Amino acid sequence: MPDTPITEDRLQAQIQSIITLLSREQMVTDAAIQQSTQKRDLVEQLTHRQHMAEVANRINALAPADIAHLLEMLPRDQRRAAWEQVGLDKAGDVLWEATDGVADALARATDRDRLLAICRHLDDDDLAQIADHVPDDVLQQHYLSLAPETRAWVKAAVSYPDDSVGRLMNNDQIAVDQNATVKDVLKQLRRLGTLPGQTNRLFVVDERRRLKGVLPVKTLLLHRPRAFVADLMEQDAPRFGPEDNTGAAARAFERYDLVSAPVVDDKGRLIGRLTVDAVMDFVREEAEDQALKREGLNPDEDLLGPIWKTARQRWLWLGLNLLTAFIASRVIGVFEGSIEQLVALATLMPIIASVGGNTGNQTIAIFIRGLALDQINASNIRPLALKEVGVSTVNGVIWGSVMGVIAFALYQNPALGAVMAAATLLNLLVAAVVGIGVPVTMNKLGRDPALGSSVLLTFVTDSMGFFIFLGLATVFLL
Amino acid sequence: MPDTPITEDRLQAQIQSIITLLSREQMVTDAAIQQSTQKRDLVEQLTHRQHMAEVANRINALAPADIAHLLEMLPRDQRRAAWEQVGLDKAGDVLWEATDGVADALARATDRDRLLAICRHLDDDDLAQIADHVPDDVLQQHYLSLAPETRAWVKAAVSYPDDSVGRLMNNDQIAVDQNATVKDVLKQLRRLGTLPGQTNRLFVVDERRRLKGVLPVKTLLLHRPRAFVADLMEQDAPRFGPEDNTGAAARAFERYDLVSAPVVDDKGRLIGRLTVDAVMDFVREEAEDQALKREGLNPDEDLLGPIWKTARQRWLWLGLNLLTAFIASRVIGVFEGSIEQLVALATLMPIIASVGGNTGNQTIAIFIRGLALDQINASNIRPLALKEVGVSTVNGVIWGSVMGVIAFALYQNPALGAVMAAATLLNLLVAAVVGIGVPVTMNKLGRDPALGSSVLLTFVTDSMGFFIFLGLATVFLL
Repeated sequence: MPDTPITEDRLQAQIQSIITLLSREQMVTDAAIQQSTQKRDLVEQLTHRQHMAEVANRINALAPADIAHLLEMLPRDQRRAAWEQVGLDKAGDVLWEATDGVADALARATDRDRLLAICRHLDDDDLAQIADHVPDDVLQQHYLSLAPETRAWVKAAVSYPDDSVGRLMNNDQIAVDQNATVKDVLKQLRRLGTLPGQTNRLFVVDERRRLKGVLPVKTLLLHRPRAFVADLMEQDAPRFGPEDNTGAAARAFERYDLVSAPVVDDKGRLIGRLTVDAVMDFVREEAEDQALKREGLNPDEDLLGPIWKTARQRWLWLGLNLLTAFIASRVIGVFEGSIEQLVALATLMPIIASVGGNTGNQTIAIFIRGLALDQINASNIRPLALKEVGVSTVNGVIWGSVMGVIAFALYQNPALGAVMAAATLLNLLVAAVVGIGVPVTMNKLGRDPALGSSVLLTFVTDSMGFFIFLGLATVFLL
Repeated sequence: MPDTPITEDRLQAQIQSIITLLSREQMVTDAAIQQSTQKRDLVEQLTHRQHMAEVANRINALAPADIAHLLEMLPRDQRRAAWEQVGLDKAGDVLWEATDGVADALARATDRDRLLAICRHLDDDDLAQIADHVPDDVLQQHYLSLAPETRAWVKAAVSYPDDSVGRLMNNDQIAVDQNATVKDVLKQLRRLGTLPGQTNRLFVVDERRRLKGVLPVKTLLLHRPRAFVADLMEQDAPRFGPEDNTGAAARAFERYDLVSAPVVDDKGRLIGRLTVDAVMDFVREEAEDQALKREGLNPDEDLLGPIWKTARQRWLWLGLNLLTAFIASRVIGVFEGSIEQLVALATLMPIIASVGGNTGNQTIAIFIRGLALDQINASNIRPLALKEVGVSTVNGVIWGSVMGVIAFALYQNPALGAVMAAATLLNLLVAAVVGIGVPVTMNKLGRDPALGSSVLLTFVTDSMGFFIFLGLATVFLL
């Protein structure tokens, strides 16, 4: 990477300078359009071309991940203008590094010929990564230009499920013969001329390409040329199957501090390699997506995509939220008679609902994290659940009493204070039970426990909060 | 790592078997205690000892990260029993791998002598990692046993701020002389006998230990023994300072697919090494913590810690939540007269508040993520904010109309329907503005934008929702 900037600050400055150039260019063009197109004279066109050439230079001096980052920050028009300046040698990697929503938008804005050219510039394994964004006919046409064995590998890699190791693996593993010596391996490496990034181990295979072990590169430095690979290799290093869940593989990378690991098929044959850079990107994305999923958002949503599309993407969720809010409101409707008699009930009831919602969301956050990190399982779920209920009881008694006293002080009604205290305690217990129940049940059903948990919980704590408070009030106060 | 299990399944089975053993042991002891201690005969004690020896064997066959994982899942008594069985050679690494809350609890349950022995078994850089959990006097006593230069390094590393590169770096970098040849370096490495994990590059320094470049290990394999290090090294590879922010360093690791990078002091002298395993642990923890922080929870809270302590840890937050809910409730209090006249207002008002809260939380989630990933900055905050407001307007008009029609159908009151529609639209706009304003302002103030954003937002959307709806109703309906 000759174009790697040394510091984060310098990188940010470079990106900022491109954004400034682009936005100035944008303004010139906008003004020019307003003046009507005829008036755009030759000088102006020339200046524009010069500016865009400068933009292209600066963009292509960045690493692909940084270009993707830049594109994600730009408004649509500027993004498209910038994307057109990205060189073919980097464009494919940029598509890969960009979030799915942005990559889709970029691919749609690119004509067939350029897309095909981008595919041709990509490594096979990187092609598998961006295949989702490329129209099928372009992909098929590109396959025709590949060597048969490469085509087979790419087609297989593209066919694995989205969250599997097969989708994340690359094809640049180096296999060495189990009967080789250190000297043979060194000769083989020198013939290759270079080693792919993240190559900290070579993979030792037999004549049928079945994985026999891994050979750390450092052993090549530390042992005599005559030593046999079979004597130096590690036989019990972690390996993965292409269908393995990416999350489990990522945890193994974290636990055992792996840099690279072999991927083998069900017959034990080496078919690919998983590297820490791909795993770290996955870990980051997965973790960042969690917060969005809890709110029912699509993590691949393009930050600067069109308003209308974004609005529609959120409809399902908004509709669901309105439905649950409406049902909770019907619970209040049942008690309209009680509210008419004692209007203070309407004033106080949102407090009960709000405390339940916030406490329940805390419990959910704790359980989602525990499940994600595998800290929660069948053996400890009971003590954990009991603890959360215990915490809710302690806090319900203490803070319920506080709220009871305040309600009494406000309305000079001791019975109202008692109802307030009891309802706070009871709704905190409801919040604990639901806050545990929702993520644990979702997890048992094989669903993502984060997805939509917030709306579901708030629905229950709102409805139950209103029901408990207004119900107790109706029975004991009226 | 000879004890690395090959698959995630096998690991989970091993952990499960230990948990089962421990919980059975626990039951035997509990029953024995109930029978009174005198009756516990020799046979029983022997069986207990045998069982615990078996537990110790199985625990110490696990990697430190897996032991930490196991301890985090165990209830307190079993956790302590299991911790006592962890060998001295692994105990320090286990403390490091455990979450802060659990590590603190474990360290507190360990006597001075054992803690000191654990420190002695640790590498210097790992000691810096766990120094926070070890009482100061134990640490001071341990320092006395270190060589002067090691002591200086450890003391310096411990002194860097919590979220800085200096805290995460290790001390096992390999420095090579800029005047050396490949042959000299190979000789130097063979003298060392082994290379530390994640060593994909050596660091080239001058006679004053100033960093001149990095030398990828693979170049040693690919070049002739007579080649000069100075000709092969990369001069512009990323380097970090010990005071650099860990988050920025992690982003550099992600972008440039780094495995290891040099850490240099302000005079450019090599003082340590940052490796991808430490960075990945950091990225994971930071991302997992975000969800908890949004709910006002302490990420280091021990999942299975005592109820009373956990309850108190959540007081500040619960108190704040009650205060904001109380203020929102006072907004309703102002309109009690209106509610007495038209009780339907009490029934419908929570819908407005709920829709605002959910929509605002979506906006917050999007902006926190955008800020965390550096996708949002001064140049694009305006179009982004305008877009969110646009989405809220579109959805407010459409779904506000739906709610208006439903309210009209329920109460046969066209004016009530119109107020409902207008209030939904207005509160969605409030939610968008606050959902953008809270994280962006927190970020500008240098605070963590996630921390407590949920409670603050809900406070505004509740209060404003009630105010807008009841205010409009009072003006136009009564």
